[in-house]
Amino acid sequence: MQPLLTNNRITQLFQIEYPIIQAGMVWASGWRLASAVSNAGGLGILGAGSMYSEVLKEHIQKTKAATSKPFAVNLPILYPNIKQHIDIIIAEKVPIVFTSAGNPKTFTTLLKDAGIVVVHVVSSSLFAQKAEAAGCDAVVAEGFEAGGHNGREETTSMVLIPAVKAAIKIPLIAAGGIATGRQMLAAMVLGAEAVQIGTRFICSDEASSHPQFKEAVIQAKEGDTQLGLKQLVPVRLLKNAFSNMILEAEKNGANMEALQTMLGKARAKKGMFEGDMEEGELEIGQVSSLINEIKSAAAIVTEIWNDFAAAVSKPF
Amino acid sequence: MQPLLTNNRITQLFQIEYPIIQAGMVWASGWRLASAVSNAGGLGILGAGSMYSEVLKEHIQKTKAATSKPFAVNLPILYPNIKQHIDIIIAEKVPIVFTSAGNPKTFTTLLKDAGIVVVHVVSSSLFAQKAEAAGCDAVVAEGFEAGGHNGREETTSMVLIPAVKAAIKIPLIAAGGIATGRQMLAAMVLGAEAVQIGTRFICSDEASSHPQFKEAVIQAKEGDTQLGLKQLVPVRLLKNAFSNMILEAEKNGANMEALQTMLGKARAKKGMFEGDMEEGELEIGQVSSLINEIKSAAAIVTEIWNDFAAAVSKPF
Repeated sequence: MQPLLTNNRITQLFQIEYPIIQAGMVWASGWRLASAVSNAGGLGILGAGSMYSEVLKEHIQKTKAATSKPFAVNLPILYPNIKQHIDIIIAEKVPIVFTSAGNPKTFTTLLKDAGIVVVHVVSSSLFAQKAEAAGCDAVVAEGFEAGGHNGREETTSMVLIPAVKAAIKIPLIAAGGIATGRQMLAAMVLGAEAVQIGTRFICSDEASSHPQFKEAVIQAKEGDTQLGLKQLVPVRLLKNAFSNMILEAEKNGANMEALQTMLGKARAKKGMFEGDMEEGELEIGQVSSLINEIKSAAAIVTEIWNDFAAAVSKPF
Repeated sequence: MQPLLTNNRITQLFQIEYPIIQAGMVWASGWRLASAVSNAGGLGILGAGSMYSEVLKEHIQKTKAATSKPFAVNLPILYPNIKQHIDIIIAEKVPIVFTSAGNPKTFTTLLKDAGIVVVHVVSSSLFAQKAEAAGCDAVVAEGFEAGGHNGREETTSMVLIPAVKAAIKIPLIAAGGIATGRQMLAAMVLGAEAVQIGTRFICSDEASSHPQFKEAVIQAKEGDTQLGLKQLVPVRLLKNAFSNMILEAEKNGANMEALQTMLGKARAKKGMFEGDMEEGELEIGQVSSLINEIKSAAAIVTEIWNDFAAAVSKPF
């Protein structure tokens, strides 16, 4: 067995201590969470998908004030004011951008020309290859078990990680179903050089998600999430009145327009930020069933790292 | 790192050399495959779900003639002539039975009173606990990525293995998404003491599945399987005209009766045994995308074990 991994292509690329990356999550990952994770030696990410551009600017500036360490912004490419977001990211000299939900060709060159490290989130080997061809520095391969928006092919981390690993030369970050150091080691055995963790960081003191949402995640049991809205963009949600309504409608043959109407606007904000546990959209991963405690982001990074170290010294 | 694992609770329980178990699969795992895997040092399993009782008896006797090593029978509890199957299993002194698709309480005591080691297949921690309470010697935890019949909660191996591990004291065998030694190590890092492998063994010389089905599995790419028939018993299938018809019907709100009629009888036989690649039901796992060669069962066991050994000595 090698010594504990504190130096690989990902830690070098991002200039971080541990290959533990906090996922950019709507309504949860503002400057408090991102700076806390970066200060703890991981990579903190601002979730720009739920921010107006002025809000993003404020969060970038506050993150820079709160940490001298590297951090990133997660940028859903389909965001309506994406150009304005990018102008701010470049002007504020954000060192790393994770792009998602769109074609990696669209902005990779623009961002890289500005000196930014670019990582693209994919759910298949094919898109991993496209990201590599577009000049991305790394990819995140996100499995079916992940919370929030998800791939149509439903490939799980156990299969996706080795598949993507075999398909590309740039480093691979695994996401989906990872909340513990033992899961982190499993992902690295499968070919990842780092892990991206969302659900576990929702249950941190610093996440801006509503306390009732954090509590619901803590209480979630196996089978309490489901993938829905497959005709729109598939999304993994904590089951509640809203998700049950969607599921029922899908079973009964609802079309895209009907589902779009049911979804309406600002459902995610209503659930995750405002705390409406029944009518809100609650994006969360399957691994919520393994999480039982809210703690500081720094304590989470330490816990995962210690668990990883223990797993490395006694893998089975 | 420990030395290579050749001795744990599962190898002791089954009296086998390697903790590699071949899944009992309808229309694929008769005496040729089961005896080849057992002779190679793993545990071969006869898939009784596609056999009349007289056929099962013949396969048990041929397996005993072909190997002096332990082997098992996979017994779907909902099988119509289950009592007759059990009488034969007891009379023929089959040493190990894997029960699936039903309540572990139903037959565990009966089988154990006959001196048989009993393992139950589950897709959740709750059912793993029920299997333990029923007196089972071990459980198989089968993730969403697995081929064939599957759990309703859709929990993937990355999440299911540690969840089941935490819920029970008896040993855990991981199934779903595992075809390589590196995936085997990942499963063991997550808490498994052995792996059960189906899809990889479909692509063996000794599997009784139709050559065209084996070829289709070799050709399968990422995203070529899907979980369907969720209103009946969810099943992971290779996509073809039949599965597309089912998917379309489900999207349009088909009810259970309509789906049952579309499924009809003997669809699995038509596809996997008779080689109808469009109208047959082709049960296979997501990991088919990683499999590119048909070889002997012994070569598969050796390949997985060597890959596992390499992964243990250089996990990342």
